[in-house]
Amino acid sequence: MLHFENDYNEGVHPKLLEVLTKTNTENLAGYGLDSYTERASQKIKEACQTPNAQVFFLTGGTQTNQVVIDTMLAPYEGVLAAETGHIAAHEAGAIEYIGHKVSTLPHKNGKLTAGDVKESLENFYADDNHEHMVYPGMVYISHPTEYGALYSKKELAELAQVCRSYAIPLFLDGARLGYGLAAKDTDLDLPTIAELTDVFYIGGTKMGALIGEAVVFTHGNMPKRFNTMVKQHGALLAKGRILGIQFDQFFTDNLYEEIGKGALRLAEQLKGILKDKGYSFFYESPTNQQFVIVENGQLEILGEKLAYSSWEKYDDNHTVIRLATSWSTTQEDIDQLKEIL
Amino acid sequence: MLHFENDYNEGVHPKLLEVLTKTNTENLAGYGLDSYTERASQKIKEACQTPNAQVFFLTGGTQTNQVVIDTMLAPYEGVLAAETGHIAAHEAGAIEYIGHKVSTLPHKNGKLTAGDVKESLENFYADDNHEHMVYPGMVYISHPTEYGALYSKKELAELAQVCRSYAIPLFLDGARLGYGLAAKDTDLDLPTIAELTDVFYIGGTKMGALIGEAVVFTHGNMPKRFNTMVKQHGALLAKGRILGIQFDQFFTDNLYEEIGKGALRLAEQLKGILKDKGYSFFYESPTNQQFVIVENGQLEILGEKLAYSSWEKYDDNHTVIRLATSWSTTQEDIDQLKEIL
Amino acid sequence: MLHFENDYNEGVHPKLLEVLTKTNTENLAGYGLDSYTERASQKIKEACQTPNAQVFFLTGGTQTNQVVIDTMLAPYEGVLAAETGHIAAHEAGAIEYIGHKVSTLPHKNGKLTAGDVKESLENFYADDNHEHMVYPGMVYISHPTEYGALYSKKELAELAQVCRSYAIPLFLDGARLGYGLAAKDTDLDLPTIAELTDVFYIGGTKMGALIGEAVVFTHGNMPKRFNTMVKQHGALLAKGRILGIQFDQFFTDNLYEEIGKGALRLAEQLKGILKDKGYSFFYESPTNQQFVIVENGQLEILGEKLAYSSWEKYDDNHTVIRLATSWSTTQEDIDQLKEIL
Amino acid sequence: MLHFENDYNEGVHPKLLEVLTKTNTENLAGYGLDSYTERASQKIKEACQTPNAQVFFLTGGTQTNQVVIDTMLAPYEGVLAAETGHIAAHEAGAIEYIGHKVSTLPHKNGKLTAGDVKESLENFYADDNHEHMVYPGMVYISHPTEYGALYSKKELAELAQVCRSYAIPLFLDGARLGYGLAAKDTDLDLPTIAELTDVFYIGGTKMGALIGEAVVFTHGNMPKRFNTMVKQHGALLAKGRILGIQFDQFFTDNLYEEIGKGALRLAEQLKGILKDKGYSFFYESPTNQQFVIVENGQLEILGEKLAYSSWEKYDDNHTVIRLATSWSTTQEDIDQLKEIL
Repeated sequence: MLHFENDYNEGVHPKLLEVLTKTNTENLAGYGLDSYTERASQKIKEACQTPNAQVFFLTGGTQTNQVVIDTMLAPYEGVLAAETGHIAAHEAGAIEYIGHKVSTLPHKNGKLTAGDVKESLENFYADDNHEHMVYPGMVYISHPTEYGALYSKKELAELAQVCRSYAIPLFLDGARLGYGLAAKDTDLDLPTIAELTDVFYIGGTKMGALIGEAVVFTHGNMPKRFNTMVKQHGALLAKGRILGIQFDQFFTDNLYEEIGKGALRLAEQLKGILKDKGYSFFYESPTNQQFVIVENGQLEILGEKLAYSSWEKYDDNHTVIRLATSWSTTQEDIDQLKEIL
Repeated sequence: MLHFENDYNEGVHPKLLEVLTKTNTENLAGYGLDSYTERASQKIKEACQTPNAQVFFLTGGTQTNQVVIDTMLAPYEGVLAAETGHIAAHEAGAIEYIGHKVSTLPHKNGKLTAGDVKESLENFYADDNHEHMVYPGMVYISHPTEYGALYSKKELAELAQVCRSYAIPLFLDGARLGYGLAAKDTDLDLPTIAELTDVFYIGGTKMGALIGEAVVFTHGNMPKRFNTMVKQHGALLAKGRILGIQFDQFFTDNLYEEIGKGALRLAEQLKGILKDKGYSFFYESPTNQQFVIVENGQLEILGEKLAYSSWEKYDDNHTVIRLATSWSTTQEDIDQLKEIL
Repeated sequence: MLHFENDYNEGVHPKLLEVLTKTNTENLAGYGLDSYTERASQKIKEACQTPNAQVFFLTGGTQTNQVVIDTMLAPYEGVLAAETGHIAAHEAGAIEYIGHKVSTLPHKNGKLTAGDVKESLENFYADDNHEHMVYPGMVYISHPTEYGALYSKKELAELAQVCRSYAIPLFLDGARLGYGLAAKDTDLDLPTIAELTDVFYIGGTKMGALIGEAVVFTHGNMPKRFNTMVKQHGALLAKGRILGIQFDQFFTDNLYEEIGKGALRLAEQLKGILKDKGYSFFYESPTNQQFVIVENGQLEILGEKLAYSSWEKYDDNHTVIRLATSWSTTQEDIDQLKEIL
Repeated sequence: MLHFENDYNEGVHPKLLEVLTKTNTENLAGYGLDSYTERASQKIKEACQTPNAQVFFLTGGTQTNQVVIDTMLAPYEGVLAAETGHIAAHEAGAIEYIGHKVSTLPHKNGKLTAGDVKESLENFYADDNHEHMVYPGMVYISHPTEYGALYSKKELAELAQVCRSYAIPLFLDGARLGYGLAAKDTDLDLPTIAELTDVFYIGGTKMGALIGEAVVFTHGNMPKRFNTMVKQHGALLAKGRILGIQFDQFFTDNLYEEIGKGALRLAEQLKGILKDKGYSFFYESPTNQQFVIVENGQLEILGEKLAYSSWEKYDDNHTVIRLATSWSTTQEDIDQLKEIL
């Protein structure tokens, strides 16, 4: 069976495993107070060119979204997101569970537009009744989106501009950020993201970490007593070192960048193979997730040798499936895929 | 100034005031354990023809929605509602605040259709990924809706049928129920509502009570330790008698019914006057809330003598305004309105 | 049956009923935006001699405690209270339900000492591990306490001093405040309470209101968007006028003060009668709640003609019962009590 | 520097690292649906001799306590714990944060007695007012306790008996369970614990796992939709395999047991060395955590070469410190300690 169904079905990137192994018997302070965590934090701030940023490491994506949103919103505030945003659709209501409404806006391949956000904010404040409504307190976007799409620098700057004019933070979910940074035509790099957002996270799990996401509060805006609130959410690891050691390595010798590039090179090959075989795509995705339109009759045959994710119904006769390359995909995998198809 | 802006701007219906006054010095048990509360409960069960029902009195609409939804949902469940549903739009996120997602569906004058609800439920369970999503745990409707519209018996029965087939409760918000029951062409009476829903409330505040809403758990399905959970929500009144005494009176000599009828008779007159003057209506509302389309230029002039509620933008030149009759509207008010216009 | 079991078993003070009746048909803005609410607020600020205070009216005691504590604490903070504090013991976990720990300290007749509070705060910050603990974010006291006891000005000033040195608010629950202000030997009046606390409430329900408690944020420290958060808690009344009208009257011609004095005059008589009959007291209570030690064998006989509250076990043969005078107690009640005993 | 300050300052046990490495490139289903997790679950059920048990793997101790307690309690229920219980003292209010009160009882070296629990439950139900109080819905104990103490089989059986008679679950926090199971004189083994408790967890992090705790619902009593609720808490790992692989190995060739035994053998040596040097102990701890009474003057000197945890003040001149052996302590560490002292 060939595995392209997602980007988290293998363990950990060999270089991270190597350093976890090498440091294993070092005696280090618990709860994220170790030197590796400190060093990883420094390296990320340097990579982002944000000396005033604050970095905190958490375990997984839903947890990170929940903790960041909960600690940055006032109780009377909710968060604006695309209908397809991970927090709106696939986190089992983790945001509402801790007390905040997710208000949704239409999307294009998972992306919000500054125009839609602005209109929503204007309408809110124009409503005489808005004291009886949920205040919009944050804009949440994902980059790449859940459909693998990317914002351009211009689009992100426009979103940032709207958020700033309403004094609400812009939060970028970068669960797959590395695959976005490595895209051929992107003009968004880490320093630009750090400049334009108020908080974002650099995804680890889907980029080859065992566990781990690095939250960056871009301008000294980490909520007060953040550490205690992380503990209160059950999200503080005794062996925080695991997160620090891996991210220290991710930001050594450009590993994080290289992993993204490798996966995207293979995604291009995969795209080529599928096109050659006559498959059509849901849209032209620039990142590691590719969405292919398949006749329903073919799905079962395809599934015999190829593991994919069913994404959504396309029409009565076709289904959109997702194929993803990742940090663990090999050239051999791609070559075998070619043979199978 | 003539007041038609809403149905809660005067104090209390004279008959309720009379009985509150008459019973004022009686010494009664606190926290809803008094004999009036017991009697009101009995009368409501009789009016609903539901001997197995359980009745509980709360203070206001948002509180009632919050307490009912919170105590009936499992933690992993959310509630389905129309986009315009009060819980979705105008309760400051009270449902999310206590941990539950409100998932919205399209509406027609505030009404949901059984078809849309069914499709939403089918799609949920058809999604392979639904374990990572919020389980639909209740359907919330308002009757009359926020636009004054009414469900027919057939429509409510279809909604009930869908809910039962998925084993989730149907909750009817009756903040203005009396104005619905009194409508000319409605085929929904209390016994039918009690039969078709799992829980609903009989609105008091907007029908002439000082405060008070009567929640009916229609078939012995009041959540365990409900009283304690009401206390925990800060919603248990020391002088619960106030609620019991008023509802006892509402259900004496058909007062509740008569109040509704009176307000609707005046609403018909109001409608006639406006039509005669050439106003057009947003839609043909069968209850006490009337939605009138007014040229923007006229709004200010109108507002000098008439208090109304701005509802929503109709088009660039027109606005929808709401005029409401109520338990406190008099024939004189209507006559003066005629003169003004 | 003679009723001394509590102070909320009759309806509403005649003067409040009169004004509710008189204003009943006035058309007033909803949700606390009416002129009576505004006027009541002004009068309270004058009575407190705090021009910068902000006043907000809520329905009942548990609701008030829940809303005030929830909106004033940061998420990582809890509240310090006496073991016997209402929030710790008798509110069904309403504080924990909305996310905050109640940490308890020992008490004397329901009172905290500044020394105990200070020691608790010192110990907290001295603990190396306090980042993994609940930050003390407020001190809650009741005045009179649940045992009817009163703080002296000196004691309250000392508590205030500790709170200020740790920059945490001091919250005084005044559910029975009127009975405290009227005590013979108290040196705490409204201006002093307003000066020494950060937030407190003037209890209405137990002083003769139908419903209603007046929260005073003493120095312009009402939390931002408080109104929206009250709505979010399901605690905003459509007919907020009820609260404003009653408190406007409470603070007209010293009514609130007079009610307190009347009840305490009768409490002194009650105390005298009981002492004459040889009863002993749990302690010398200066307010309307009197705690009497009764032989268990006598309880049933006493209960035949006199309604009292069982308070707690005194020893194997005795029980502490509570007898309360109130705004509704009459001289006749006291005279009959004398006869019965 | 010699490290005895805690049991989580090194990475992962070599045998676990070996198997994580060996399985690293296997392609496995995400979110705990992999074969290792299934196998680990089976092995744990066998070790517990509970074919009807259900096992779920979570990340760390606070998270586990939070998720288990939140999903097993009704909203109106709280949990009984020792004053020193981890949930009461050192989890930053994680239990209150999700809505539940922790009611505390006195302890002996961290242990509750069945008598105290029973008395507390009896008093609760004897109180006429208990509908306005937090229902006791669970008993939480830790084994070993935070002081390293152990329950005997008899003591645990008595606690279980009380819990059963009140139909509330008994939850055993086994963050350091392996060190308890390996104690010389304990009569509590896994099958007995599984028989007597309703839910417990087998600690991984402090026993040598990178991350990971195995929750055992002992009799098919895992809450409905538990997986979704774990997701909702932000506690579901994409690479759940990490937990499964490690626990599969823990329960292969008695590794978990052997790790415990090894640490306790060294703890005995440590105890001997300290006694020889004239130190006295806070109490005779049977497990890996040893509590030593040290003169304050000596603390600094000791701290130069030895890392310990400050535990609590003993008297004005002495402090209790904790020294812990663990899965990572070596004979060499102990030998060096002997030299230092």
